Amino acid sequence: MSQIAQVGIIMGSQSDLPVMAEAAEILEELGVGFELTVVSAHRTPDRMVDYARSARERGLRVIIAGAGGAAHLPGMVASMTSLPVIGVPVKSSNSIDGWDSILSILQMPGGIPVATVALNGAKNAGILAASMVGAFDLEVGKKLDQYKESLRKKVESSADELSKVGWKAALTKK
Amino acid sequence: MSQIAQVGIIMGSQSDLPVMAEAAEILEELGVGFELTVVSAHRTPDRMVDYARSARERGLRVIIAGAGGAAHLPGMVASMTSLPVIGVPVKSSNSIDGWDSILSILQMPGGIPVATVALNGAKNAGILAASMVGAFDLEVGKKLDQYKESLRKKVESSADELSKVGWKAALTKK
Amino acid sequence: MSQIAQVGIIMGSQSDLPVMAEAAEILEELGVGFELTVVSAHRTPDRMVDYARSARERGLRVIIAGAGGAAHLPGMVASMTSLPVIGVPVKSSNSIDGWDSILSILQMPGGIPVATVALNGAKNAGILAASMVGAFDLEVGKKLDQYKESLRKKVESSADELSKVGWKAALTKK
Amino acid sequence: MSQIAQVGIIMGSQSDLPVMAEAAEILEELGVGFELTVVSAHRTPDRMVDYARSARERGLRVIIAGAGGAAHLPGMVASMTSLPVIGVPVKSSNSIDGWDSILSILQMPGGIPVATVALNGAKNAGILAASMVGAFDLEVGKKLDQYKESLRKKVESSADELSKVGWKAALTKK
Amino acid sequence: MSQIAQVGIIMGSQSDLPVMAEAAEILEELGVGFELTVVSAHRTPDRMVDYARSARERGLRVIIAGAGGAAHLPGMVASMTSLPVIGVPVKSSNSIDGWDSILSILQMPGGIPVATVALNGAKNAGILAASMVGAFDLEVGKKLDQYKESLRKKVESSADELSKVGWKAALTKK
Amino acid sequence: MSQIAQVGIIMGSQSDLPVMAEAAEILEELGVGFELTVVSAHRTPDRMVDYARSARERGLRVIIAGAGGAAHLPGMVASMTSLPVIGVPVKSSNSIDGWDSILSILQMPGGIPVATVALNGAKNAGILAASMVGAFDLEVGKKLDQYKESLRKKVESSADELSKVGWKAALTKK
Amino acid sequence: MSQIAQVGIIMGSQSDLPVMAEAAEILEELGVGFELTVVSAHRTPDRMVDYARSARERGLRVIIAGAGGAAHLPGMVASMTSLPVIGVPVKSSNSIDGWDSILSILQMPGGIPVATVALNGAKNAGILAASMVGAFDLEVGKKLDQYKESLRKKVESSADELSKVGWKAALTKK
Amino acid sequence: MSQIAQVGIIMGSQSDLPVMAEAAEILEELGVGFELTVVSAHRTPDRMVDYARSARERGLRVIIAGAGGAAHLPGMVASMTSLPVIGVPVKSSNSIDGWDSILSILQMPGGIPVATVALNGAKNAGILAASMVGAFDLEVGKKLDQYKESLRKKVESSADELSKVGWKAALTKK
Repeated sequence: MSQIAQVGIIMGSQSDLPVMAEAAEILEELGVGFELTVVSAHRTPDRMVDYARSARERGLRVIIAGAGGAAHLPGMVASMTSLPVIGVPVKSSNSIDGWDSILSILQMPGGIPVATVALNGAKNAGILAASMVGAFDLEVGKKLDQYKESLRKKVESSADELSKVGWKAALTKK
Repeated sequence: MSQIAQVGIIMGSQSDLPVMAEAAEILEELGVGFELTVVSAHRTPDRMVDYARSARERGLRVIIAGAGGAAHLPGMVASMTSLPVIGVPVKSSNSIDGWDSILSILQMPGGIPVATVALNGAKNAGILAASMVGAFDLEVGKKLDQYKESLRKKVESSADELSKVGWKAALTKK
Repeated sequence: MSQIAQVGIIMGSQSDLPVMAEAAEILEELGVGFELTVVSAHRTPDRMVDYARSARERGLRVIIAGAGGAAHLPGMVASMTSLPVIGVPVKSSNSIDGWDSILSILQMPGGIPVATVALNGAKNAGILAASMVGAFDLEVGKKLDQYKESLRKKVESSADELSKVGWKAALTKK
Repeated sequence: MSQIAQVGIIMGSQSDLPVMAEAAEILEELGVGFELTVVSAHRTPDRMVDYARSARERGLRVIIAGAGGAAHLPGMVASMTSLPVIGVPVKSSNSIDGWDSILSILQMPGGIPVATVALNGAKNAGILAASMVGAFDLEVGKKLDQYKESLRKKVESSADELSKVGWKAALTKK
Repeated sequence: MSQIAQVGIIMGSQSDLPVMAEAAEILEELGVGFELTVVSAHRTPDRMVDYARSARERGLRVIIAGAGGAAHLPGMVASMTSLPVIGVPVKSSNSIDGWDSILSILQMPGGIPVATVALNGAKNAGILAASMVGAFDLEVGKKLDQYKESLRKKVESSADELSKVGWKAALTKK
Repeated sequence: MSQIAQVGIIMGSQSDLPVMAEAAEILEELGVGFELTVVSAHRTPDRMVDYARSARERGLRVIIAGAGGAAHLPGMVASMTSLPVIGVPVKSSNSIDGWDSILSILQMPGGIPVATVALNGAKNAGILAASMVGAFDLEVGKKLDQYKESLRKKVESSADELSKVGWKAALTKK
Repeated sequence: MSQIAQVGIIMGSQSDLPVMAEAAEILEELGVGFELTVVSAHRTPDRMVDYARSARERGLRVIIAGAGGAAHLPGMVASMTSLPVIGVPVKSSNSIDGWDSILSILQMPGGIPVATVALNGAKNAGILAASMVGAFDLEVGKKLDQYKESLRKKVESSADELSKVGWKAALTKK
Repeated sequence: MSQIAQVGIIMGSQSDLPVMAEAAEILEELGVGFELTVVSAHRTPDRMVDYARSARERGLRVIIAGAGGAAHLPGMVASMTSLPVIGVPVKSSNSIDGWDSILSILQMPGGIPVATVALNGAKNAGILAASMVGAFDLEVGKKLDQYKESLRKKVESSADELSKVGWKAALTKK
């Protein structure tokens, strides 16, 4: 992490780390600098205000915020910065199948958008953050193209192998 | 409103007033002093912080906060005061049948409760606020008992009339 | 429990105790006296009527009622007292992901509010009850402020430690 | 209504009459005596207790109870009588698309059943009540068979006419 | 089962037996004769037609039908008999949290009611069937009153014991 | 309709005709012969049995069945023929936003499939039926390819015109 | 698989094989030739285009496509062939109880139908594909009739056995 | 639109224009160049491929894609570019309250993110796109800060006026 952090990853509770670490891992793989910490909208509102308001001047280009249940962190951070904010609905233990997390992040009022990804979709949040950087930084753009290419190859080699061994054998191997 | 305000009514947008005014009307009827204003979690975060943090010292006993969509106002206010906060999910035009408003108010994480009432249930929010005051103020408690009594009488006289005119006549009168 | 009970905790079945005990635990921690028993709306309707109608004269300030499935206990108790009633939707074994419990507690008709908290949110019900007492009892109000402060400190020390050990180490420790 | 009432139709509010009258109409058509009144679980709990507990001795064989939102009337009546209780979820103005009414009537705990019919399905509630009477009263049973027969004939004559005029003509006539 | 069967219990598949047996058990307890078999709407439509059309002449007073997923058995049986039909939505392995079972049983069109009970609520289906018989058979009516009484006593003795041992002890015993 | 009918269109009630006629219209446009009538699973079960069992020998290749609410027609017909059955969930007046229609058609048990299309998707049901015929009849296959082509051209000419007039003008024209 | 493939089975990821193999198994049982491979709409869009556009000329009569989450594979394939496409919503690990899979397959716009089967309903997809072939190929039609017959016999022998051993014994054997 | 287009706005059908034009309007207000056209995933798949694959080289930094029902456009475009893609779920006439649009855009599989905004949230999509540009272009960043400031002022002046005229007067004016 000697790189300058362009992406800030925050989460409402350390218990969200197993989900949110996937954002960090893919950013590392794609060579995009990031920082990661715990900020709670409800338990540390002042810390949240400080984090959001200083984000741009600290060099961040985008913030990834994950939270579960009545998830207010992404929306509140978005209300206090003009940087893009990506929201990750976390299916925490107190969540109703994730519907509460999704709706309280997605359904922001006019004027204050949050870029919402799938339930527990922290990996996609990392890729999305990288694509925002990569829209201006060709190096990152290329890495994303290579990543897409690697996804393609994995599916094709999986299809090749399936064709070789046959579906019945593939099934029993599982 | 010459009385001291014991209840603070806030809403995210003036467009919520037709719903939220029902809280004011019933508090007036029950003789409980209140104040009412517009505070937006996402558009006026500082105003919200000031409102929540000064609530107790300004003499408020309870805050009623209404909001729609990804409704963060009640929960964020609750995170910054130790007074009870009642949340009114508003079925605003950008809401998905109200589910987003309900879940983003109701499903607060452990430590920061919001007392949630029914969708568009501002009248009940007012009665609930009065009942909190009335738990300590016998005068208000009596008014609530009288209000309950009036509800009972309305149903009973409605039943009496229905019995007199018969259901067919009552139906066509409708 | 030598203190006078200001909060009454009731539940529809003793099988709800593991959930509802969290209300008792936090009230004990916050120094608010309470009583706890089993009252079923459907199996002991008379007992419910007695409980609700005598609540105020027995000194209670607020009632916490938990129930699952078609959860009628909180609403029926609210119909027979002018004290505030907090409803805890319990995700019992016969519940449809908790939606039945939530909706049959939350969606009370005009005139009879129930202060609904999150699914299985008994801890928050306890804090909410304490905040109602604390709106009039400064001692309890202070304890709530200290509790909020302790939540803040926990998040901040968690953030500090995460910063020290790094997210990868924190992840594997988990 | 010179007949002895075998079916009791109750509703939480007179505003439910347009829906609930369909139960009365079909019972009249099927020649089953009934009574109809307004009883509110939340606004007239004592009236509800009296109604439910005296139902059997007054000669009722079955009770039809309709209510909307957090609909407690059918379940509470069922808890206080051993007669069968049919619940009609009413899609009232304060209901969330009817889900609250349905779930708070349907999802009764073990021991206290409510025979739930479709949303606003008062007509079916009336037929169901008649079928309970008709299981023991052959006269009513025959009327139900004739009613079923009339439904069949209506569909068949509708099919015949459609066949004669053709679907295009039938469509434009609409 | 030497008694004459007054209740017919059917289910779409023998895999529903663990759920549906609860109807049989409670009917046995309440002294109401019943028969139980497997009838599938989709796999044995002719068998279903025979079952439904002969039900009344075989002496049945009510039919309990359980099925999961797109559950057509209760409604189709109801379309071919004028006896009351109780539908039990079964949360089978191929069901979407039970919503499909519930809605395809509950939402019957005008003219063909099904008395729907809670998800997996076979026990309540049995009690409901008994209450229909008990509306005309005082012996069964009394047994139902005794059953209700036993439910009350269980709750009260549970409350007594809880009061004796205290909630903390009761909790750890669990 | 001088052609031999290869597709049978049925619906539970003539009130479904405005929705279901779209299947007829597109089949006519695609030159696939069809027949159309009213068959109710619940009100004319015998008629339904006859229709389903004679379908293949009457020359039908596929059946389109539309119904609303607890929609049993498509699944019951599918249980009595080995022809493919397409189910159209109709959002009828007694439906809960269409969820009941969808789930009671879609969630068929293993062994008895129904090819479900979108809510009110009768047009797509017609195209799907044509594609089944067109898989074996090249003439129909070609018509489908032309239809697809016409859809493409419509979008492209719409894009061209939008480009010419500009989005602001296009908006005000609306 | 020496037969000519008339059915193409594709899935978005090899992780869907355990679900999708049920389509292959039943097609094998019914004697309908098929091919099976992995094609991802999002990771191998070109491969998907090639697959869909060459399907008819390669001799396929119908395509079965399974996918989970935001499941675009069935709909996108349907947009590029005039063969019938059957969509299997897969309840993958990243799915919200399957609702996302179902809705993104079922709710196709006018002009581009997908024949949707139940959640994880690959077996039914296979039967449905066979029924499309069997509408034109009498041999396959007969096999389907025999399959239906076998389902009937299984239920009836299950009912017979249940009758012999009694429900209590059957229950404990389970 | 003499500026270079940095944002591409596409929609599945011109009928989505009234919703999607809000993205164009706010981008114009914020001084960010854009282009707008109609591209359908299902009706013009080739056009979609061309659009997505040429987007980066044509100078776009971000694509906004709106669609309703089974909305595949945003996800399919995202699968063919490494630029960030913002998805706008449109509540079109054939949508089930918007749930289908939301879930088929939001729940993208790992590797292919779509930045989803609220139902019909095209205005927020425009602001989000501007914030991505503004993370690298200070001029746009400042305009966004000014926009946020204007939202704040509107709320505050609304609160001031409400305070002056009083809530009763404000209510009747409405």
